[in-house]
Amino acid sequence: MLSAVRTTLEPSLDPAAYPFVTRVRVRFAETDAMGVAHHGSYLPWLEEARVAYLRETGHPYTAVRADGFDIAVVECHVRYRASALFEDELAVHCLVAPPTGATFEIGYLVLRGDEAIATAVTVHAYLESATGRPRRPPEWVRDISTASH
Amino acid sequence: MLSAVRTTLEPSLDPAAYPFVTRVRVRFAETDAMGVAHHGSYLPWLEEARVAYLRETGHPYTAVRADGFDIAVVECHVRYRASALFEDELAVHCLVAPPTGATFEIGYLVLRGDEAIATAVTVHAYLESATGRPRRPPEWVRDISTASH
Amino acid sequence: MLSAVRTTLEPSLDPAAYPFVTRVRVRFAETDAMGVAHHGSYLPWLEEARVAYLRETGHPYTAVRADGFDIAVVECHVRYRASALFEDELAVHCLVAPPTGATFEIGYLVLRGDEAIATAVTVHAYLESATGRPRRPPEWVRDISTASH
Amino acid sequence: MLSAVRTTLEPSLDPAAYPFVTRVRVRFAETDAMGVAHHGSYLPWLEEARVAYLRETGHPYTAVRADGFDIAVVECHVRYRASALFEDELAVHCLVAPPTGATFEIGYLVLRGDEAIATAVTVHAYLESATGRPRRPPEWVRDISTASH
Repeated sequence: MLSAVRTTLEPSLDPAAYPFVTRVRVRFAETDAMGVAHHGSYLPWLEEARVAYLRETGHPYTAVRADGFDIAVVECHVRYRASALFEDELAVHCLVAPPTGATFEIGYLVLRGDEAIATAVTVHAYLESATGRPRRPPEWVRDISTASH
Repeated sequence: MLSAVRTTLEPSLDPAAYPFVTRVRVRFAETDAMGVAHHGSYLPWLEEARVAYLRETGHPYTAVRADGFDIAVVECHVRYRASALFEDELAVHCLVAPPTGATFEIGYLVLRGDEAIATAVTVHAYLESATGRPRRPPEWVRDISTASH
Repeated sequence: MLSAVRTTLEPSLDPAAYPFVTRVRVRFAETDAMGVAHHGSYLPWLEEARVAYLRETGHPYTAVRADGFDIAVVECHVRYRASALFEDELAVHCLVAPPTGATFEIGYLVLRGDEAIATAVTVHAYLESATGRPRRPPEWVRDISTASH
Repeated sequence: MLSAVRTTLEPSLDPAAYPFVTRVRVRFAETDAMGVAHHGSYLPWLEEARVAYLRETGHPYTAVRADGFDIAVVECHVRYRASALFEDELAVHCLVAPPTGATFEIGYLVLRGDEAIATAVTVHAYLESATGRPRRPPEWVRDISTASH
Protein backbone atom coordinates (compact mmCIF):
# COMPACT_ATOMS: atom_id res chain seq x y z
CA MET A 1 0.00 0.00 0.00
CA LEU A 2 2.73 2.44 0.90
CA SER A 3 4.89 0.50 -1.50
CA ALA A 4 3.20 1.81 -4.64
CA VAL A 5 5.05 5.07 -4.33
CA ARG A 6 8.39 3.60 -3.53
CA THR A 7 9.77 3.42 -7.01
CA THR A 8 9.24 6.97 -8.15
CA LEU A 9 11.27 9.64 -6.44
CA GLU A 10 14.50 9.43 -4.50
CA PRO A 11 15.38 12.86 -3.17
CA SER A 12 19.01 13.65 -3.89
CA LEU A 13 21.46 14.74 -1.22
CA ASP A 14 22.97 17.17 -3.71
CA PRO A 15 21.38 20.64 -3.50
CA ALA A 16 22.35 21.27 -7.12
CA ALA A 17 19.70 18.72 -8.12
CA TYR A 18 16.95 21.09 -6.97
CA PRO A 19 15.73 24.13 -8.94
CA PHE A 20 14.41 25.99 -5.91
CA VAL A 21 15.32 26.74 -2.32
CA THR A 22 13.64 28.66 0.46
CA ARG A 23 14.88 29.40 3.95
CA VAL A 24 13.24 28.86 7.30
CA ARG A 25 14.47 29.50 10.80
CA VAL A 26 13.47 27.07 13.54
CA ARG A 27 10.96 28.69 15.89
CA PHE A 28 10.99 28.03 19.60
CA ALA A 29 7.37 26.92 19.26
CA GLU A 30 8.61 24.22 16.86
CA THR A 31 10.95 22.61 19.39
CA ASP A 32 9.99 19.89 21.84
CA ALA A 33 11.13 18.63 25.22
CA MET A 34 14.01 16.72 23.57
CA GLY A 35 15.44 20.17 22.86
CA VAL A 36 15.21 19.81 19.09
CA ALA A 37 12.68 20.64 16.40
CA HIS A 38 9.71 18.31 16.73
CA HIS A 39 9.35 15.91 13.80
CA GLY A 40 5.89 17.31 13.09
CA SER A 41 7.34 20.79 12.57
CA TYR A 42 8.96 19.75 9.32
CA LEU A 43 5.71 19.36 7.40
CA PRO A 44 4.88 23.09 7.46
CA TRP A 45 8.45 23.80 6.28
CA LEU A 46 8.02 21.50 3.29
CA GLU A 47 4.67 23.13 2.61
CA GLU A 48 6.24 26.58 2.81
CA ALA A 49 8.88 25.52 0.29
CA ARG A 50 6.44 24.13 -2.28
CA VAL A 51 4.07 27.09 -1.85
CA ALA A 52 6.99 29.47 -2.43
CA TYR A 53 8.08 27.45 -5.46
CA LEU A 54 4.61 27.63 -7.01
CA ARG A 55 4.52 31.37 -6.32
CA GLU A 56 7.92 31.89 -7.97
CA THR A 57 6.92 29.96 -11.07
CA GLY A 58 3.85 32.17 -11.50
CA HIS A 59 1.31 29.69 -10.18
CA PRO A 60 0.56 30.85 -6.64
CA TYR A 61 -1.52 28.44 -4.65
CA THR A 62 -3.98 31.22 -3.90
CA ALA A 63 -4.68 31.40 -7.67
CA VAL A 64 -5.09 27.62 -7.85
CA ARG A 65 -7.68 27.87 -5.10
CA ALA A 66 -9.37 30.90 -6.67
CA ASP A 67 -9.75 28.81 -9.85
CA GLY A 68 -11.66 26.20 -7.88
CA PHE A 69 -8.94 23.64 -7.26
CA ASP A 70 -6.99 22.27 -4.34
CA ILE A 71 -3.66 20.50 -4.27
CA ALA A 72 -4.15 17.85 -1.64
CA VAL A 73 -1.39 15.96 0.14
CA VAL A 74 -2.07 12.27 -0.36
CA GLU A 75 1.18 10.95 1.08
CA CYS A 76 4.16 12.28 2.95
CA HIS A 77 7.46 10.55 3.61
CA VAL A 78 10.14 12.17 5.74
CA ARG A 79 13.55 10.87 6.68
CA TYR A 80 15.05 12.71 9.64
CA ARG A 81 18.83 12.63 9.26
CA ALA A 82 20.02 15.02 11.95
CA SER A 83 18.35 17.14 14.60
CA ALA A 84 17.46 20.75 13.90
CA LEU A 85 17.80 23.18 16.78
CA PHE A 86 16.07 26.37 17.83
CA GLU A 87 17.29 29.32 15.72
CA ASP A 88 18.89 27.07 13.11
CA GLU A 89 18.64 28.49 9.63
CA LEU A 90 17.60 25.76 7.24
CA ALA A 91 17.59 25.69 3.45
CA VAL A 92 14.63 23.76 2.11
CA HIS A 93 15.34 22.67 -1.45
CA CYS A 94 12.55 21.23 -3.56
CA LEU A 95 11.68 19.93 -7.01
CA VAL A 96 8.48 18.82 -8.67
CA ALA A 97 8.61 15.46 -10.43
CA PRO A 98 6.72 14.99 -13.71
CA PRO A 99 3.09 14.02 -13.05
CA THR A 100 2.14 10.40 -13.56
CA GLY A 101 -1.59 10.14 -14.10
CA ALA A 102 -3.59 12.03 -11.50
CA THR A 103 -0.82 12.63 -8.98
CA PHE A 104 2.60 14.21 -8.80
CA GLU A 105 5.44 14.08 -6.34
CA ILE A 106 7.61 16.75 -4.79
CA GLY A 107 11.06 15.96 -3.42
CA TYR A 108 12.87 17.90 -0.70
CA LEU A 109 16.29 18.24 0.82
CA VAL A 110 16.61 20.19 4.07
CA LEU A 111 20.14 21.44 4.76
CA ARG A 112 21.84 23.28 7.61
CA GLY A 113 24.94 24.52 5.89
CA ASP A 114 26.26 21.38 4.20
CA GLU A 115 24.59 18.98 6.57
CA ALA A 116 21.50 17.06 5.46
CA ILE A 117 18.83 17.48 8.14
CA ALA A 118 16.09 15.68 6.26
CA THR A 119 14.94 14.39 2.92
CA ALA A 120 11.29 14.05 2.06
CA VAL A 121 8.73 13.28 -0.60
CA THR A 122 5.15 14.47 -0.69
CA VAL A 123 2.60 13.08 -3.12
CA HIS A 124 -0.16 15.35 -4.33
CA ALA A 125 -3.50 15.10 -6.07
CA TYR A 126 -5.10 17.89 -8.02
CA LEU A 127 -8.71 18.17 -6.87
CA GLU A 128 -11.81 20.09 -7.86
CA SER A 129 -12.62 21.99 -4.65
CA ALA A 130 -16.39 21.75 -5.02
CA THR A 131 -16.52 17.99 -5.49
CA GLY A 132 -13.21 16.76 -4.13
CA ARG A 133 -12.76 14.85 -7.39
CA PRO A 134 -9.24 14.26 -8.68
CA ARG A 135 -8.38 15.99 -11.92
CA ARG A 136 -5.44 15.73 -14.26
CA PRO A 137 -2.82 18.24 -13.06
CA PRO A 138 -2.60 21.23 -15.44
CA GLU A 139 0.20 21.55 -17.98
CA TRP A 140 2.19 23.99 -15.86
CA VAL A 141 2.85 21.24 -13.32
CA ARG A 142 4.72 19.32 -16.01
CA ASP A 143 6.35 22.53 -17.20
CA ILE A 144 7.89 23.30 -13.81
CA SER A 145 8.83 19.70 -13.15
CA THR A 146 12.40 18.46 -13.08
CA ALA A 147 12.69 15.64 -15.57
CA SER A 148 15.73 13.79 -14.33
CA HIS A 149 16.54 13.53 -10.68
CA MET B 1 17.20 6.00 0.29
CA LEU B 2 13.63 6.14 1.43
CA SER B 3 13.05 2.85 -0.31
CA ALA B 4 15.24 0.76 1.99
CA VAL B 5 12.74 1.03 4.80
CA ARG B 6 9.57 0.49 2.92
CA THR B 7 9.95 -3.22 2.67
CA THR B 8 9.30 -3.90 6.31
CA LEU B 9 5.88 -2.89 7.49
CA GLU B 10 2.65 -2.66 5.56
CA PRO B 11 -0.04 -1.31 7.86
CA SER B 12 -3.18 -3.42 7.60
CA LEU B 13 -6.59 -1.95 6.87
CA ASP B 14 -8.09 -4.40 9.35
CA PRO B 15 -8.36 -2.92 12.85
CA ALA B 16 -8.24 -6.45 14.31
CA ALA B 17 -4.57 -6.58 13.27
CA TYR B 18 -3.71 -3.97 15.89
CA PRO B 19 -3.38 -4.65 19.64
CA PHE B 20 -4.10 -1.08 20.71
CA VAL B 21 -6.39 1.79 19.87
CA THR B 22 -6.77 5.30 21.19
CA ARG B 23 -9.30 7.95 20.26
CA VAL B 24 -8.79 11.55 19.23
CA ARG B 25 -11.26 14.21 18.20
CA VAL B 26 -10.26 16.64 15.47
CA ARG B 27 -9.68 20.09 16.95
CA PHE B 28 -10.63 23.25 15.12
CA ALA B 29 -7.00 24.35 15.46
CA GLU B 30 -6.06 21.23 13.47
CA THR B 31 -8.14 22.16 10.42
CA ASP B 32 -6.95 24.30 7.53
CA ALA B 33 -8.48 26.56 4.90
CA MET B 34 -9.49 23.52 2.80
CA GLY B 35 -11.96 22.84 5.60
CA VAL B 36 -10.36 19.56 6.64
CA ALA B 37 -7.72 18.43 9.11
CA HIS B 38 -4.32 19.66 7.92
CA HIS B 39 -1.99 16.83 6.91
CA GLY B 40 0.50 17.96 9.54
CA SER B 41 -2.06 17.45 12.31
CA TYR B 42 -1.89 13.67 11.92
CA LEU B 43 1.65 13.35 13.31
CA PRO B 44 0.68 14.41 16.85
CA TRP B 45 -2.22 11.91 16.70
CA LEU B 46 0.14 9.09 15.80
CA GLU B 47 2.45 10.23 18.58
CA GLU B 48 -0.44 10.30 21.03
CA ALA B 49 -1.33 6.73 20.05
CA ARG B 50 2.16 5.30 20.50
CA VAL B 51 2.69 7.23 23.76
CA ALA B 52 -0.60 5.83 25.08
CA TYR B 53 0.39 2.34 23.96
CA LEU B 54 3.73 2.53 25.78
CA ARG B 55 1.93 3.81 28.87
CA GLU B 56 -0.59 0.95 28.75
CA THR B 57 2.12 -1.67 28.43
CA GLY B 58 3.85 -0.33 31.53
CA HIS B 59 6.64 1.55 29.76
CA PRO B 60 5.57 5.19 29.84
CA TYR B 61 7.69 7.45 27.73
CA THR B 62 8.27 9.67 30.76
CA ALA B 63 10.04 6.68 32.40
CA VAL B 64 12.10 6.06 29.27
CA ARG B 65 13.25 9.67 29.42
CA ALA B 66 13.84 9.56 33.17
CA ASP B 67 16.13 6.57 32.53
CA GLY B 68 18.21 8.71 30.19
CA PHE B 69 16.86 7.62 26.83
CA ASP B 70 14.87 9.10 24.00
CA ILE B 71 12.84 7.39 21.32
CA ALA B 72 13.54 9.49 18.27
CA VAL B 73 11.47 9.51 15.10
CA VAL B 74 13.83 8.77 12.23
CA GLU B 75 11.22 8.39 9.51
CA CYS B 76 7.53 8.93 9.05
CA HIS B 77 5.32 7.79 6.23
CA VAL B 78 1.67 8.74 6.05
CA ARG B 79 -0.90 7.86 3.44
CA TYR B 80 -3.95 10.11 3.59
CA ARG B 81 -6.94 8.09 2.39
CA ALA B 82 -9.89 10.34 3.20
CA SER B 83 -10.31 13.77 4.74
CA ALA B 84 -10.93 14.15 8.45
CA LEU B 85 -13.26 16.94 9.51
CA PHE B 86 -13.56 19.17 12.54
CA GLU B 87 -15.17 17.26 15.45
CA ASP B 88 -14.64 13.87 13.80
CA GLU B 89 -13.91 11.14 16.30
CA LEU B 90 -11.03 9.06 15.05
CA ALA B 91 -9.75 5.71 16.25
CA VAL B 92 -5.98 5.51 15.98
CA HIS B 93 -4.90 1.87 15.96
CA CYS B 94 -1.25 0.99 16.34
CA LEU B 95 1.20 -1.87 16.62
CA VAL B 96 4.92 -2.12 17.28
CA ALA B 97 6.87 -4.29 14.86
CA PRO B 98 9.74 -6.43 16.16
CA PRO B 99 12.97 -4.40 16.30
CA THR B 100 15.53 -5.03 13.61
CA GLY B 101 18.94 -3.91 14.78
CA ALA B 102 18.90 -0.43 16.24
CA THR B 103 15.49 0.67 15.01
CA PHE B 104 11.89 -0.40 15.20
CA GLU B 105 8.77 0.49 13.33
CA ILE B 106 5.27 1.34 14.44
CA GLY B 107 2.29 0.91 12.15
CA TYR B 108 -1.00 2.82 12.33
CA LEU B 109 -4.50 2.71 10.98
CA VAL B 110 -6.71 5.75 11.52
CA LEU B 111 -10.42 5.03 11.22
CA ARG B 112 -13.60 7.09 11.32
CA GLY B 113 -16.15 4.43 11.96
CA ASP B 114 -15.32 1.82 9.32
CA GLU B 115 -13.64 4.25 6.96
CA ALA B 116 -9.86 4.33 6.68
CA ILE B 117 -8.72 7.93 7.03
CA ALA B 118 -5.01 7.18 7.00
CA THR B 119 -2.38 4.51 7.35
CA ALA B 120 1.09 5.30 8.54
CA VAL B 121 4.45 3.96 9.61
CA THR B 122 6.95 5.67 11.89
CA VAL B 123 10.50 4.40 12.31
CA HIS B 124 12.20 4.93 15.64
CA ALA B 125 15.68 4.83 17.10
CA TYR B 126 16.43 4.29 20.76
CA LEU B 127 18.94 6.93 21.81
CA GLU B 128 21.01 7.76 24.86
CA SER B 129 19.79 11.26 25.71
CA ALA B 130 23.17 12.56 26.89
CA THR B 131 25.09 11.57 23.78
CA GLY B 132 22.40 11.10 21.14
CA ARG B 133 23.96 7.70 20.38
CA PRO B 134 21.71 4.92 19.12
CA ARG B 135 21.33 1.96 21.45
CA ARG B 136 19.76 -1.42 21.02
CA PRO B 137 16.06 -1.10 21.98
CA PRO B 138 15.35 -2.79 25.33
CA GLU B 139 13.72 -6.20 25.53
CA TRP B 140 10.29 -4.83 26.32
CA VAL B 141 10.09 -3.33 22.83
CA ARG B 142 10.27 -6.85 21.41
CA ASP B 143 7.89 -8.07 24.11
CA ILE B 144 5.15 -5.63 23.14
CA SER B 145 5.72 -6.08 19.42
CA THR B 146 3.27 -7.80 17.14
CA ALA B 147 5.09 -10.58 15.37
CA SER B 148 2.97 -11.08 12.30
CA HIS B 149 1.19 -8.23 10.64
CA MET C 1 -7.32 49.42 24.13
CA LEU C 2 -6.81 46.07 25.70
CA SER C 3 -7.99 47.52 28.97
CA ALA C 4 -11.59 48.09 27.89
CA VAL C 5 -12.35 44.40 27.97
CA ARG C 6 -10.58 43.43 31.12
CA THR C 7 -13.20 44.80 33.40
CA THR C 8 -15.74 42.11 32.68
CA LEU C 9 -14.62 38.66 33.60
CA GLU C 10 -12.21 37.53 36.28
CA PRO C 11 -11.79 33.78 36.03
CA SER C 12 -12.18 32.19 39.45
CA LEU C 13 -9.59 29.85 40.93
CA ASP C 14 -12.44 27.74 42.33
CA PRO C 15 -13.44 24.92 39.95
CA ALA C 16 -16.91 24.90 41.52
CA ALA C 17 -17.51 28.25 39.83
CA TYR C 18 -17.51 26.56 36.42
CA PRO C 19 -20.42 24.52 34.98
CA PHE C 20 -18.26 22.46 32.63
CA VAL C 21 -14.94 20.69 32.55
CA THR C 22 -13.09 18.72 29.92
CA ARG C 23 -9.81 16.87 30.18
CA VAL C 24 -6.72 17.05 27.99
CA ARG C 25 -3.40 15.30 28.25
CA VAL C 26 -0.27 17.22 27.29
CA ARG C 27 1.12 15.86 24.00
CA PHE C 28 4.82 15.62 23.37
CA ALA C 29 4.27 17.77 20.28
CA GLU C 30 2.95 20.47 22.61
CA THR C 31 6.14 20.73 24.66
CA ASP C 32 9.09 22.97 23.85
CA ALA C 33 12.83 23.03 24.48
CA MET C 34 12.23 24.36 28.01
CA GLY C 35 10.79 20.92 28.72
CA VAL C 36 7.28 22.19 29.41
CA ALA C 37 4.12 22.76 27.41
CA HIS C 38 4.66 25.70 25.06
CA HIS C 39 2.51 28.70 25.92
CA GLY C 40 0.93 28.55 22.46
CA SER C 41 -0.33 25.02 23.12
CA TYR C 42 -2.88 26.27 25.63
CA LEU C 43 -5.08 28.01 23.05
CA PRO C 44 -6.18 24.76 21.38
CA TRP C 45 -6.98 23.36 24.85
CA LEU C 46 -9.22 26.32 25.64
CA GLU C 47 -10.83 25.90 22.22
CA GLU C 48 -11.38 22.20 22.84
CA ALA C 49 -13.08 23.04 26.16
CA ARG C 50 -15.49 25.61 24.72
CA VAL C 51 -16.26 23.42 21.70
CA ALA C 52 -17.04 20.52 24.04
CA TYR C 53 -19.19 22.79 26.21
CA LEU C 54 -21.22 23.96 23.21
CA ARG C 55 -21.63 20.36 22.09
CA GLU C 56 -22.83 19.29 25.54
CA THR C 57 -25.38 22.08 25.73
CA GLY C 58 -26.86 20.99 22.40
CA HIS C 59 -25.28 23.71 20.27
CA PRO C 60 -22.37 22.03 18.52
CA TYR C 61 -20.12 24.41 16.69
CA THR C 62 -20.54 22.33 13.54
CA ALA C 63 -24.28 23.25 13.66
CA VAL C 64 -23.45 26.93 14.19
CA ARG C 65 -21.29 26.80 11.08
CA ALA C 66 -23.86 24.81 9.11
CA ASP C 67 -26.35 27.59 9.92
CA GLY C 68 -24.01 30.11 8.30
CA PHE C 69 -22.33 31.58 11.35
CA ASP C 70 -18.91 31.63 12.89
CA ILE C 71 -17.84 32.30 16.44
CA ALA C 72 -14.66 34.31 16.03
CA VAL C 73 -12.06 34.85 18.71
CA VAL C 74 -11.58 38.61 19.03
CA GLU C 75 -9.35 38.57 22.09
CA CYS C 76 -7.52 36.08 24.21
CA HIS C 77 -5.91 36.57 27.59
CA VAL C 78 -3.97 33.82 29.28
CA ARG C 79 -2.20 33.87 32.62
CA TYR C 80 0.31 31.04 32.95
CA ARG C 81 0.54 30.14 36.65
CA ALA C 82 2.59 26.94 36.63
CA SER C 83 4.25 24.83 33.98
CA ALA C 84 2.44 21.88 32.45
CA LEU C 85 4.54 18.86 31.58
CA PHE C 86 4.38 16.14 28.96
CA GLU C 87 1.73 13.54 29.88
CA ASP C 88 0.12 15.79 32.52
CA GLU C 89 -3.62 15.34 32.72
CA LEU C 90 -5.26 18.73 32.87
CA ALA C 91 -8.83 19.67 33.70
CA VAL C 92 -9.99 22.62 31.63
CA HIS C 93 -12.96 24.27 33.33
CA CYS C 94 -14.97 26.87 31.48
CA LEU C 95 -17.98 29.13 31.71
CA VAL C 96 -19.73 31.45 29.30
CA ALA C 97 -20.43 34.95 30.60
CA PRO C 98 -23.69 36.67 29.62
CA PRO C 99 -23.32 38.45 26.26
CA THR C 100 -22.94 42.20 26.31
CA GLY C 101 -23.94 43.63 22.95
CA ALA C 102 -22.30 41.83 20.07
CA THR C 103 -19.66 39.91 22.01
CA PHE C 104 -19.42 37.43 24.83
CA GLU C 105 -16.64 36.19 27.03
CA ILE C 106 -15.61 32.74 28.12
CA GLY C 107 -13.58 32.17 31.27
CA TYR C 108 -11.27 29.23 31.93
CA LEU C 109 -9.42 27.58 34.78
CA VAL C 110 -6.84 24.93 33.91
CA LEU C 111 -6.01 22.62 36.80
CA ARG C 112 -3.57 19.76 37.37
CA GLY C 113 -5.09 18.13 40.40
CA ASP C 114 -5.62 21.07 42.75
CA GLU C 115 -2.95 23.23 41.20
CA ALA C 116 -3.91 26.13 38.95
CA ILE C 117 -1.88 25.88 35.76
CA ALA C 118 -3.57 28.77 33.98
CA THR C 119 -6.55 31.06 33.93
CA ALA C 120 -7.81 32.61 30.74
CA VAL C 121 -10.49 34.66 29.07
CA THR C 122 -11.44 34.59 25.43
CA VAL C 123 -13.73 37.18 23.87
CA HIS C 124 -15.93 36.13 20.99
CA ALA C 125 -17.99 37.72 18.27
CA TYR C 126 -20.87 36.01 16.51
CA LEU C 127 -20.40 36.52 12.77
CA GLU C 128 -22.32 35.83 9.59
CA SER C 129 -19.94 33.56 7.68
CA ALA C 130 -20.75 34.92 4.24
CA THR C 131 -20.16 38.56 5.09
CA GLY C 132 -18.06 38.46 8.24
CA ARG C 133 -20.55 40.87 9.82
CA PRO C 134 -21.08 40.72 13.57
CA ARG C 135 -24.52 39.61 14.67
CA ARG C 136 -26.22 39.57 18.04
CA PRO C 137 -25.40 36.21 19.68
CA PRO C 138 -28.45 33.93 19.70
CA GLU C 139 -30.54 33.41 22.85
CA TRP C 140 -28.93 30.10 23.68
CA VAL C 141 -25.65 31.86 24.41
CA ARG C 142 -27.40 33.75 27.23
CA ASP C 143 -29.17 30.56 28.28
CA ILE C 144 -25.94 28.64 28.80
CA SER C 145 -24.16 31.58 30.41
CA THR C 146 -23.23 31.69 34.05
CA ALA C 147 -24.72 34.84 35.52
CA SER C 148 -22.56 35.34 38.59
CA HIS C 149 -18.95 34.41 38.62
CA MET D 1 -6.04 38.69 38.62
CA LEU D 2 -5.72 39.46 34.97
CA SER D 3 -6.35 43.06 35.91
CA ALA D 4 -2.97 43.58 37.56
CA VAL D 5 -1.33 43.86 34.19
CA ARG D 6 -3.91 46.08 32.66
CA THR D 7 -2.40 49.41 33.52
CA THR D 8 1.05 48.94 32.13
CA LEU D 9 1.33 48.66 28.40
CA GLU D 10 -1.04 49.79 25.68
CA PRO D 11 0.34 48.76 22.32
CA SER D 12 0.22 51.67 19.92
CA LEU D 13 -1.40 51.44 16.49
CA ASP D 14 1.43 53.58 15.11
CA PRO D 15 4.29 51.45 13.75
CA ALA D 16 6.68 54.37 14.38
CA ALA D 17 6.28 53.71 18.10
CA TYR D 18 8.16 50.43 17.74
CA PRO D 19 11.94 50.08 17.40
CA PHE D 20 11.83 46.73 15.65
CA VAL D 21 9.89 44.89 12.99
CA THR D 22 10.08 41.43 11.51
CA ARG D 23 8.09 39.90 8.70
CA VAL D 24 6.15 36.64 8.56
CA ARG D 25 4.08 35.11 5.82
CA VAL D 26 0.96 33.18 6.78
CA ARG D 27 1.49 29.46 6.21
CA PHE D 28 -1.29 27.22 4.96
CA ALA D 29 -0.74 25.10 8.08
CA GLU D 30 -1.61 28.19 10.14
CA THR D 31 -5.07 28.63 8.61
CA ASP D 32 -8.24 26.98 9.87
CA ALA D 33 -11.59 25.91 8.46
CA MET D 34 -12.86 29.52 8.68
CA GLY D 35 -10.36 30.19 5.88
CA VAL D 36 -8.24 32.56 7.95
CA ALA D 37 -5.18 32.29 10.17
CA HIS D 38 -6.14 30.47 13.35
CA HIS D 39 -5.96 32.66 16.45
CA GLY D 40 -3.43 30.30 17.99
CA SER D 41 -1.05 30.85 15.07
CA TYR D 42 -0.31 34.39 16.19
CA LEU D 43 1.61 33.37 19.32
CA PRO D 44 4.53 31.85 17.38
CA TRP D 45 4.65 35.03 15.25
CA LEU D 46 4.95 37.20 18.35
CA GLU D 47 7.61 34.84 19.66
CA GLU D 48 9.48 35.02 16.38
CA ALA D 49 9.43 38.84 16.56
CA ARG D 50 10.78 39.04 20.12
CA VAL D 51 13.40 36.36 19.45
CA ALA D 52 14.55 38.29 16.37
CA TYR D 53 14.61 41.52 18.38
CA LEU D 54 16.79 39.97 21.09
CA ARG D 55 19.08 38.58 18.41
CA GLU D 56 19.41 41.96 16.73
CA THR D 57 20.24 43.72 19.99
CA GLY D 58 23.06 41.26 20.62
CA HIS D 59 21.27 39.13 23.20
CA PRO D 60 20.16 36.04 21.32
CA TYR D 61 17.85 33.82 23.27
CA THR D 62 20.16 30.88 22.63
CA ALA D 63 22.83 32.79 24.64
CA VAL D 64 20.34 33.49 27.43
CA ARG D 65 19.64 29.77 27.62
CA ALA D 66 23.32 28.84 27.39
CA ASP D 67 23.89 31.12 30.40
CA GLY D 68 21.38 29.09 32.38
CA PHE D 69 18.31 31.26 32.11
CA ASP D 70 14.91 31.11 30.50
CA ILE D 71 12.55 33.88 29.56
CA ALA D 72 9.16 32.46 30.40
CA VAL D 73 5.85 33.76 29.13
CA VAL D 74 3.68 34.45 32.17
CA GLU D 75 0.84 36.18 30.37
CA CYS D 76 -0.30 36.82 26.85
CA HIS D 77 -2.98 39.17 25.64
CA VAL D 78 -3.96 39.34 22.00
CA ARG D 79 -6.56 41.50 20.33
CA TYR D 80 -7.51 40.24 16.88
CA ARG D 81 -8.52 43.25 14.78
CA ALA D 82 -8.83 41.80 11.29
CA SER D 83 -8.40 38.37 9.76
CA ALA D 84 -5.09 37.33 8.27
CA LEU D 85 -5.20 35.13 5.19
CA PHE D 86 -2.99 32.44 3.71
CA GLU D 87 0.05 34.00 1.99
CA ASP D 88 -0.49 37.39 3.64
CA GLU D 89 2.77 39.13 4.45
CA LEU D 90 2.59 40.57 7.92
CA ALA D 91 4.86 43.04 9.67
CA VAL D 92 5.22 42.22 13.35
CA HIS D 93 6.40 45.30 15.24
CA CYS D 94 7.53 44.99 18.82
CA LEU D 95 8.98 46.91 21.75
CA VAL D 96 10.21 45.92 25.18
CA ALA D 97 8.81 47.96 28.06
CA PRO D 98 11.11 48.82 30.99
CA PRO D 99 11.13 45.99 33.55
CA THR D 100 9.14 46.47 36.72
CA GLY D 101 10.46 44.19 39.42
CA ALA D 102 10.86 40.62 38.25
CA THR D 103 8.86 40.86 35.03
CA PHE D 104 8.82 42.83 31.83
CA GLU D 105 6.32 43.34 29.07
CA ILE D 106 6.61 43.28 25.32
CA GLY D 107 4.12 45.07 23.09
CA TYR D 108 3.27 44.16 19.50
CA LEU D 109 1.50 45.56 16.49
CA VAL D 110 0.82 43.22 13.57
CA LEU D 111 0.17 45.01 10.29
CA ARG D 112 -0.77 43.97 6.76
CA GLY D 113 0.18 47.05 4.82
CA ASP D 114 -1.44 49.83 6.83
CA GLU D 115 -4.11 47.65 8.34
CA ALA D 116 -3.83 46.57 11.96
CA ILE D 117 -4.34 42.82 12.13
CA ALA D 118 -3.63 42.47 15.84
CA THR D 119 -2.15 44.13 18.87
CA ALA D 120 -0.72 42.14 21.72
CA VAL D 121 1.18 42.18 24.99
CA THR D 122 3.20 39.37 26.45
CA VAL D 123 4.50 39.43 30.01
CA HIS D 124 7.76 37.69 30.78
CA ALA D 125 9.68 36.46 33.78
CA TYR D 126 13.42 35.90 33.81
CA LEU D 127 14.05 32.48 35.34
CA GLU D 128 17.02 30.40 36.43
CA SER D 129 16.65 27.30 34.26
CA ALA D 130 17.90 24.85 36.90
CA THR D 131 15.52 25.95 39.64
CA GLY D 132 12.78 27.77 37.80
CA ARG D 133 13.26 30.67 40.23
CA PRO D 134 12.50 34.18 39.01
CA ARG D 135 15.50 36.51 38.82
CA ARG D 136 15.80 40.19 38.24
CA PRO D 137 16.06 40.72 34.45
CA PRO D 138 19.60 41.73 33.44
CA GLU D 139 20.50 45.33 32.65
CA TRP D 140 20.34 44.81 28.92
CA VAL D 141 16.59 44.29 29.14
CA ARG D 142 16.28 47.85 30.45
CA ASP D 143 18.81 49.03 27.88
CA ILE D 144 16.81 47.77 24.93
CA SER D 145 13.50 48.88 26.40
CA THR D 146 11.43 51.69 24.97
CA ALA D 147 10.81 54.19 27.75
CA SER D 148 7.76 56.01 26.47
CA HIS D 149 5.16 54.31 24.42
